[in-house]
Amino acid sequence: MHASPTMSLHDALSNALGADRISADPTVAESHAADWSDAPRCAPSLVILPRTPAEIARALAVLTQYGQPVAVQGGLTGLAGAATPQAGEVALSLARLNAIEAFDTAGGTVTVQAGVVLEQLQTHVEAEGWFFPLDLGARGSCQLGGNAATNAGGNRVVRFGTMRERILGIEVALPDGTVLSMLNRVTKNTTGIDLKQLFIGSEGLLGVITRLVLKLEPKPAAAQTALCALGSFDAAARLLKTLRMRLPGLSSFELMWDDFMVAACEVARLKPPFATRYPIYALVETLGDADEDAQRALESALGDMIEGGVIDDVIIAQSIEQTKQLWAARESVGELLAATRPHAAFDVGVPMDEMERCVASLRARLLERFPEQRHLFFGHLGDGNLHVLTGPFADDAALLAVEVLVYEAVRDAGGCISAEHGIGVIKRPFIALTRSEPELDLMHKIKSMIDPASILNAGRVIP
Amino acid sequence: MHASPTMSLHDALSNALGADRISADPTVAESHAADWSDAPRCAPSLVILPRTPAEIARALAVLTQYGQPVAVQGGLTGLAGAATPQAGEVALSLARLNAIEAFDTAGGTVTVQAGVVLEQLQTHVEAEGWFFPLDLGARGSCQLGGNAATNAGGNRVVRFGTMRERILGIEVALPDGTVLSMLNRVTKNTTGIDLKQLFIGSEGLLGVITRLVLKLEPKPAAAQTALCALGSFDAAARLLKTLRMRLPGLSSFELMWDDFMVAACEVARLKPPFATRYPIYALVETLGDADEDAQRALESALGDMIEGGVIDDVIIAQSIEQTKQLWAARESVGELLAATRPHAAFDVGVPMDEMERCVASLRARLLERFPEQRHLFFGHLGDGNLHVLTGPFADDAALLAVEVLVYEAVRDAGGCISAEHGIGVIKRPFIALTRSEPELDLMHKIKSMIDPASILNAGRVIP
Repeated sequence: MHASPTMSLHDALSNALGADRISADPTVAESHAADWSDAPRCAPSLVILPRTPAEIARALAVLTQYGQPVAVQGGLTGLAGAATPQAGEVALSLARLNAIEAFDTAGGTVTVQAGVVLEQLQTHVEAEGWFFPLDLGARGSCQLGGNAATNAGGNRVVRFGTMRERILGIEVALPDGTVLSMLNRVTKNTTGIDLKQLFIGSEGLLGVITRLVLKLEPKPAAAQTALCALGSFDAAARLLKTLRMRLPGLSSFELMWDDFMVAACEVARLKPPFATRYPIYALVETLGDADEDAQRALESALGDMIEGGVIDDVIIAQSIEQTKQLWAARESVGELLAATRPHAAFDVGVPMDEMERCVASLRARLLERFPEQRHLFFGHLGDGNLHVLTGPFADDAALLAVEVLVYEAVRDAGGCISAEHGIGVIKRPFIALTRSEPELDLMHKIKSMIDPASILNAGRVIP
Repeated sequence: MHASPTMSLHDALSNALGADRISADPTVAESHAADWSDAPRCAPSLVILPRTPAEIARALAVLTQYGQPVAVQGGLTGLAGAATPQAGEVALSLARLNAIEAFDTAGGTVTVQAGVVLEQLQTHVEAEGWFFPLDLGARGSCQLGGNAATNAGGNRVVRFGTMRERILGIEVALPDGTVLSMLNRVTKNTTGIDLKQLFIGSEGLLGVITRLVLKLEPKPAAAQTALCALGSFDAAARLLKTLRMRLPGLSSFELMWDDFMVAACEVARLKPPFATRYPIYALVETLGDADEDAQRALESALGDMIEGGVIDDVIIAQSIEQTKQLWAARESVGELLAATRPHAAFDVGVPMDEMERCVASLRARLLERFPEQRHLFFGHLGDGNLHVLTGPFADDAALLAVEVLVYEAVRDAGGCISAEHGIGVIKRPFIALTRSEPELDLMHKIKSMIDPASILNAGRVIP
C-alpha cells in the first residue's frame, strides 16, 4: 500500500513543512493526548502543527506515503473520542490555522480557517451587526473545523439548523495531498454532486477541513425567554407546533422532565422555578426585535396556550437576571455529570411521535434494572434530540448494559444513536444498530476510495 | 463491463417486473420524450413504469446487466434537460410511485414515495395544519423525487432553505439493484457519513430516489406582503438585513430591477405599481400569525426604513386581491419568456457583495453587444440567486455568445452557473467554469464507484 522510505517520518515531515511545524516534545504530546470524551488518553508520537492549508496537504501526502495513521484535532472538546489519538498515531492540530480571512458585511458571510474558535467568530461578527447562531457549551474552546467535521448542533437548531446548514463553502485537504477548494459563497448552488456534504459530519474520515465559508444571521436586538410548566409530553408537542407558527423567531425549545429539574435544582442549589412540580418543563427562547411587539407576541401566544389548557403555568423573564435564572437548571448539566460519576450520558434522536413512549419505557426499564441510580431526561425537543443522563454505576458491565438498553430502545423507536455528539470510538460498537449493512458498506467504499492507506482517523466511526 | 445476455432487454425487464410495467407503445414513448427544457426531444425506446421501490431496484439491476443507459424521469418539469432521453436510452418513470405513506401529525414529518406531486403533498398536509414550504411554478406537475434530485429552491429559501434542508430521510435504488433505505425521521443524526447528501442535487447520476422523509412547518395563519421601491442595490441589501432581523417570519425577498418591472407590466398588461419608476423593487412576504401584532410589526419595520431613507416608497397589501397584484409582475415570467423567444434564461448564483457590480457590468456588456435585445434582471436576493432573461436572439451563435458572457462574469464574481435549475445537458459544457478539475475528478470517481456501467443519466452534469 505504501513505500518503505529510508528517511524517518519526523525528517520527512520536517522537510515537507519545516522543522518548527513538528513537535516530539513530550509536554506538547501530552497536551494532545485526549479530548473531552471518556476515551482512554494516549499521547501521540508526534504533533504536527501546520500554519496553512497547503502545509496540511503536504503533511497528509507524507503520512499517506508512510502509511502513518493520524488523529485530526480541533479544539479537543469532542465527546465521542474521534480526536483522541490511538496507539501508534501522530496528531495533526488545526490550532495554528486561526485566521478570519474575509467578511462580507453586506451579505453576511465569512471565510475562516478551520482552527478559529467558535466564540472568537461570534465576537468578531457581532461587532458588525451579524450573528453566528451555532452555540454550544464548548464555545470557548471548540473550533469551527471540528464543528463542521461533527456537524455540531446545540440549542438553536430548531430555528437555525445544525452546522451543516451554516456551511456554504469548504476547503479540504485530502490524504493524497490534493487541496479541494470549494469556497462557494452563495446559498443556492446546484452544479453537480455537492461534495462538501461528504466532509461535513464524517468526523475527519475523508479529509481535513482547512477553510470554511459560513452563513451569518443579522444580530438579534433582543431575546425573550419563558419557562412553561406542562402536564404531558403531548402538551409540549402542541405548544411547540403553535409557537413555531406564531413566533417565527423561536430559537430554542428545550425540554426537561421533572426528574431532571429536581436533580438540577438540588445539584446546582437552585430554587425550584414553580411552587409545585409538573411532569415536564419547556424553556422557550425567541430572538428578534427589541420592540414591544415582540414581547407582546410572546405574551399573547403563551397567554392563549394557558387559556387553552396546554400550559399549566409560565414564567416570562422580565430582565437579563431572570433570563439567566430560567436557563440555570438547563445549564447545570456539567454539575450533574460531575455529581453522577461514573455515568452514561446519551445523545440520541427519537422521532416526535415515538418520544413519549420511548422515554416512558426507558425510564421504567432503567428504574427496574437500576433502582438506586439517577435517570434524567432532557433534550432539544424541536430536533427530536433526547439527552439521557444515568448513573452512577457500579462497574463497566453495568454501563455496557445501560448502553445496550438505551440504544436498542432508540433503534426500536426508529431513532438514531447519536444526534449531535457523533460516533467517534465511543459509539462505534453500536453504529450498526441504526445504520444498515448496505449503508456501512457504502461508507467503507467511499473511505477506501478517498483514503486508500486509511491514515485519517482510522478506527473511528465505521466498524 | 456487462454480460451479453441472450434474452432481449424488453423480455428481461418484463420477467423482472411484470409485462405491464414495460411499455414500447410509441404514444407512451412520445409522452416521455422531453422535459420543460430546450434540450432536443428524443423518444425513449422503452418506458419502464414500476409501482414499488423494489421494482425500480430490479429494473436497475437488469439495466446494469445489459449496460443499458436510462433517463430517470419525475414530473418532466426540469429546465436543464436531465430527464430528456438521449439517443439509445430507455426511460424510467416514477409516476406510479405516488403514495403518501406516513404522516406524523404531532412532529410534522411525512414519508412519501418519490412520484408524489409537490402540490399533492402541500394540499394533503395543510388539511392537518401543516405546511410544506418548498414552492415553485411547476408545483402542479413536479414530483418530490425530482425536487430532491435537483435540490429545488424557489421563492421561500430565504427562510425555509432549499429541498435539501427539508429532507430528513431518503431511500435510493442503486444501479446494482441494492435498495439503500435511510428513512431517518429526526432532525439531528450524526451517525457516520451522511450518505443521503450524495443523492440530493446530483440529478440522478448515482441512484434513483424512491422514498423521502420530509420535514414540515406549522401551517401559517396568514401572509403579509409588501412591495418596496428602492433607490439602489445597496438599499436593498440593507433592507434585507433589517427585515431578516426584525421579522423572523420573512419568507420571500424577491428583487426586480426596473427594466424587468417595465417589461413585465407591458407584457402582462399590468398597471405600474408606483406613480414613478425606481431603480429597483423588493417584494417582501412574511408568513406567520394572523393577529394584529404581525401586521403591525411589518408596518413598523417598513415605516422605520422609510424614515431612515432606505425605502423610497412602499405598498403594503391590505387584501388577498392586492397581494395578488403585488406578485403579478414577479409572476409574469412565463409570459415574458414566451414573448422573448429565442431567449437565454439564466439562473446563476452571485455573492451579495459582488451582486451590484456583476449586474451593472452584465447589463452594460449585454447592451453594448446586443443593443436591440431585452435584458431583464430579477431574482431571489436572500439567496444570491440572480435570474437574467435576455433575447430575442438572431441565431444560435448569438445565444452561445451570451452564455459565455454571462457565465464568465459569474465565474469572475465568485458565483455559480446554476443556483437552482441544475446542470443537466444544457449547462454541462459550462460546469468547469465554476467547479474545479479536482472537484470534477472526485465526482467522476464517485460516479464510477456507484454506477460502474454508467447507466444512470449518462451524459448529464459531468463533462
